[in-house]
Amino acid sequence: HLPASGVYNSILWAVVSYVLLLWLVRVTFGMPDPAKRDQLRRDEASQQTGGRITLTVAEQKLDSHLRKLKLQEMSAAQFPPALHFFKAKRLIEKSPVYKILQKMPKGAALHIHSTSMVSVEWLVKNVTYRPHCYICFTWDNSVRFLFSDRQPFPRWDCFYWQLLETLRARLGDPTGFDYSLMQHLTLFTESPESEYPTQDIVWEKFEKAFIVAAGLISHAPVLKDYVYKGLQELYYDNIMYLELRCGLSRTYELDGTIHDKVLTLKIFHEVTQKFVQDYPDFLGARIIISAHRALGVSEVKAAVKEAIQLQKDFPDVVAGFDIVGREDDGKTLWFFREALSLPAQLGSMLPFFFHAGETDDEGSDVDQNILDALLFNTSRIGHGYALAHHPLAKELSRKGNIAVELCPISNQVLKLVSDLRNHPAVVLMSEGHPLVISSDDPSLFGTSGLSYDFYQAFVGIGGLKANLGTLKELASNSIRYSSLPANLKNKLYGMWLKKWDLFVAKNS
Amino acid sequence: HLPASGVYNSILWAVVSYVLLLWLVRVTFGMPDPAKRDQLRRDEASQQTGGRITLTVAEQKLDSHLRKLKLQEMSAAQFPPALHFFKAKRLIEKSPVYKILQKMPKGAALHIHSTSMVSVEWLVKNVTYRPHCYICFTWDNSVRFLFSDRQPFPRWDCFYWQLLETLRARLGDPTGFDYSLMQHLTLFTESPESEYPTQDIVWEKFEKAFIVAAGLISHAPVLKDYVYKGLQELYYDNIMYLELRCGLSRTYELDGTIHDKVLTLKIFHEVTQKFVQDYPDFLGARIIISAHRALGVSEVKAAVKEAIQLQKDFPDVVAGFDIVGREDDGKTLWFFREALSLPAQLGSMLPFFFHAGETDDEGSDVDQNILDALLFNTSRIGHGYALAHHPLAKELSRKGNIAVELCPISNQVLKLVSDLRNHPAVVLMSEGHPLVISSDDPSLFGTSGLSYDFYQAFVGIGGLKANLGTLKELASNSIRYSSLPANLKNKLYGMWLKKWDLFVAKNS
Ligand SMILES: [Zn+2]
Ligand SMILES: [Zn+2]
Repeated sequence: HLPASGVYNSILWAVVSYVLLLWLVRVTFGMPDPAKRDQLRRDEASQQTGGRITLTVAEQKLDSHLRKLKLQEMSAAQFPPALHFFKAKRLIEKSPVYKILQKMPKGAALHIHSTSMVSVEWLVKNVTYRPHCYICFTWDNSVRFLFSDRQPFPRWDCFYWQLLETLRARLGDPTGFDYSLMQHLTLFTESPESEYPTQDIVWEKFEKAFIVAAGLISHAPVLKDYVYKGLQELYYDNIMYLELRCGLSRTYELDGTIHDKVLTLKIFHEVTQKFVQDYPDFLGARIIISAHRALGVSEVKAAVKEAIQLQKDFPDVVAGFDIVGREDDGKTLWFFREALSLPAQLGSMLPFFFHAGETDDEGSDVDQNILDALLFNTSRIGHGYALAHHPLAKELSRKGNIAVELCPISNQVLKLVSDLRNHPAVVLMSEGHPLVISSDDPSLFGTSGLSYDFYQAFVGIGGLKANLGTLKELASNSIRYSSLPANLKNKLYGMWLKKWDLFVAKNS
Repeated sequence: HLPASGVYNSILWAVVSYVLLLWLVRVTFGMPDPAKRDQLRRDEASQQTGGRITLTVAEQKLDSHLRKLKLQEMSAAQFPPALHFFKAKRLIEKSPVYKILQKMPKGAALHIHSTSMVSVEWLVKNVTYRPHCYICFTWDNSVRFLFSDRQPFPRWDCFYWQLLETLRARLGDPTGFDYSLMQHLTLFTESPESEYPTQDIVWEKFEKAFIVAAGLISHAPVLKDYVYKGLQELYYDNIMYLELRCGLSRTYELDGTIHDKVLTLKIFHEVTQKFVQDYPDFLGARIIISAHRALGVSEVKAAVKEAIQLQKDFPDVVAGFDIVGREDDGKTLWFFREALSLPAQLGSMLPFFFHAGETDDEGSDVDQNILDALLFNTSRIGHGYALAHHPLAKELSRKGNIAVELCPISNQVLKLVSDLRNHPAVVLMSEGHPLVISSDDPSLFGTSGLSYDFYQAFVGIGGLKANLGTLKELASNSIRYSSLPANLKNKLYGMWLKKWDLFVAKNS
C-alpha cells in the first residue's frame, strides 16, 4: 500500500470525527442531559412504596414478568381498576397478574370486620341449612335469622318466624330462594350503578346486611365454625395473621340463653388456637374491639372502659379499640373526646386503630377526623381516604410511622371514587407513605382474602410504576405495622420471608 | 354582716374551686389540647392556596356569606361537582355561589384554544347564516363548511357542496337543522355517559369538532369577528387578559386566495387592539403558537423555527410555543426533543407552555411528559393532571414557580375523573401549589369564560376549605404566571385589584 493512503485515511477520519462531533454538539446542546433525566426518573421512582428495595436476581425476573403482564392488562379493551369492582371481578379472576397475587404470601390482614369475614355462600348453603334455623321477613324487605329450639316470640321488627327447613320444603325453587337470601347478606350485584345510585343508598344496604348476618353469626355454635371458616379463607389466600375489628356482640344458644361478651372473646381465642394447631404456618389473630359511632358519649365511655378491662384480661387477644360506622353522617371522633381520653386518664395503654377520613367531603368536620385520630395517638388509620388532602396530617402520620389501612375495593363500592386510578392513595404510594392493604368487608363486596385488593392497589393505584418491590413492601408492612409484640413480629416476619422466597423461586 | 359569713364564703369558694379543678383535670387530661388542635388546623389551612392571605373586613364578610352558600350547596340532594358537567350545568347556573363567581374579576385566562373560544350558538346562528357559506356532509356523519364565491370543487373528504342559504330554504325545520349543526361543533349533550362511554370515543368527537369549526373560522373575514366575539365572551365574564393557544392555520378568502400564516397573527393582533380600544379595561391578548403532536419531528422542528421567527417579528403578540393534541395515544415530548432543543441551540428565548400529564396512565412514557416539560424549562404546565402523583416533578415545579393550568371541566368531560372531589388538584390546592384556573375548550364543553371552571375548583376541588382567599390567590395567580413583561403585569394587577375591591364592596 502507498504511504499516501495512510495520510488520506487520517484526513478522512479527522473530517468524519469533526462532522460527527458537530452533529453531536448540535443535537445535544439545549437538550436536557439524558443521564440526568434518567437519574431524576430513578430518584422519583425510589420515593414510591418499595422504591428502595433492592430486588434479588430471581425477584428481578419475576418483576419483569409481572411488568409484561401488567402492560398487557393496561392495553386491553377494559381496564379492571377503571370499572366498578362488581363488573371487574370476573375480568380480575382471569388476570394472570391476579393469579400470581393469589399465590403471593401477603403477610397480615389488618382491617377486616368480623361480620363480613366469611363468604355469603357458606352462610346460606351451610349455616342456614342447619337445624332449628328460623327466618322472618321484615316490613322493609329484609330478613332476620334466629336459631331456636322452639317457635321464637314475635319481636318489634319480626312478627312471624318460620322454620327454614319447613319453608324450603314447600318452595319450588330452593336455588333461587338461597340466591335471594345471599342478596340480603352482600352488596354484590350485577348492576351496581342502578342499584346503588348514591352513597346514602349503598350505606343503607351496607348497614342492613350486618343486621341480617348478626342473627346467624351470634349463635354460639355457628360463631365457632364461622371464625374457623374465616381464618381458613384468609389462609387459603396466603395470609398468615389477622387483626379483626369486632363489636363483641353477645352470643346466644338454642334455648335463648344469652352469653356474656367475654364468651365471644373466648370463642374467638379458642378457635384461633385450634386453627393454628391445624395450620401451624398461620400465626394467629387478634381483635380490635369496635364501638359504633351511633352510640352516645356515655355508651362509648362504657365501651372504652370495658375494652381496657378486656385488654388486661386477654392481652394476647385484644389489640385495641376503634369507632366504626359511616363517618359522613355520623359523630366525629372529637365528639367522643371524653371517652377517647379515658385510657390516658386511667393510665391504660389501650391502643387505638381509628377509622378516619373515609370521606369525600373536604373541609367538613368529618374531614377533620384524620387530624383528631392522630392527636389521640392512633396506631394506624383505617382508610385515611382524605389523608392526601391534608398536608399537615400527612406529615404527622408519616413522621409518627402511622400506617394507612388502604381498602381500595371498599372505597369504590361505597362510592368514594369510581376509577381507582384517581384514588388519593396514588399520591401516598408515589411518596412511599406507610401503607398496608386490606379488604374491609370481603363478604359484602364479594371478595375473599386480600388478593382482589392487592390487585387494585398494584395495577390500578400503583399503575405501571408499582413493581415487585412495592408488593414486597406492602406485604412486609402488614407485619411491621401490626399490633404484635416485637418477638411475634420477628417470628411472623421470618415465617413470611421464607414463604416469600419460595414464592419468588417458584414463579420467576 | 357577720365575720363568720366571710370565712364560710372563703371555704365554700375553695371547695368549689377545688372540685372544678378536679373536674377540669379529669376531663382534659389525656385529651389533646384544644388550643393546640386549633393551631394545627389553622397551620394546615394556611398551607392551602390563598391560605396566607389576610382578608379585609369586607372580604371576611363576603367570605362567610360564600361559606354559608357553599354549605347549602353541599347539603343539597345533588352536588354539581360530583355529576358530569353536562348534567350539572343547569344546577350550577342556578347556584348563588356561581352567580357571585360570575361577577368576580378573575384576572386572566391562560389556557384556551383558539378553535373553541366562541360559543357554537354564535357560529351557527351568525356565521353559517352569512352569504356564500357552503356545507358538505361527509361519509363519516360529519360536516365541512366553506365560504366561496362560486361552487367549490369536490375534495377528497367532500364531494357535494351545497349553498347553506339554498339548503335552509328547502328545509322544513331550520331550528332542528341548526341544532344538528351545533352538535357537530360541541361535545355538549344531555346523555354524556352513553354517547361517550370511553376516552377514545370522546377524543375522537373532540378532534372532529375542531375540523368542522376550522372551515368557518379560517375564513379571514369570519376570523376577525370570531376573535372579537371571543374576547367579548371573556370580557363579559370579568376576564381582563388572554393567552390563546393557536395553531396559526392559514386563512382564506371568498375567491380561494390562501393567506400566509402571518396574516392570522396580524388579524389577531389588530382585532385585539380594536377590542382594547372599545373596552379599555381589557388589557389584551397574546398567542401561544401550538403544533399538533400528530406531526413528525422535522415538521415540529420547522414549527419551532417559525415560532422563533414570529416571536422576533411580533414580540408583543407571540408568548411562546406548545405541543397539543391527546397525550395518551400521541408522541411524547421526549420524542420531539430535537425540535424542543432548537430555541436553546439557536440562542432564542422562545418560552414553552407545554400540555403535560393529561393522563390517568401512571408510570407510562406519557406520564413522564411532566418531568420532561420541566426539563425543557416550560413556563407553565398545561393540565398537569398527573403532577400530584410525581413527588419529584411536583417539587421541581413548585421550586421553579411553574404554575399548573387547571382545567377541571375539561378533565371531567375528557373522562380523566368523574367526581371532581377526586381530582388530583385537591392535593395541589391543599398544599398551595402554584395554580391557575382555565377552561381549555369552552365551546366544546358548553361553557363560556372561566366562571364554570372557577365554580368546580372552588366548590368541588377546594371543598369547604377553599375560601375567598383561595379565589383571590387563584385570580391574582393568573396575572402573576402570565407571560406578560413586568410593567404590563403590574399594570394588569393594578387594574384587577381595583375591580376586586369594587367587587368585594358590592357583594359583602
Ligand atoms: Zn372498616
Ligand atoms: Zn388544552
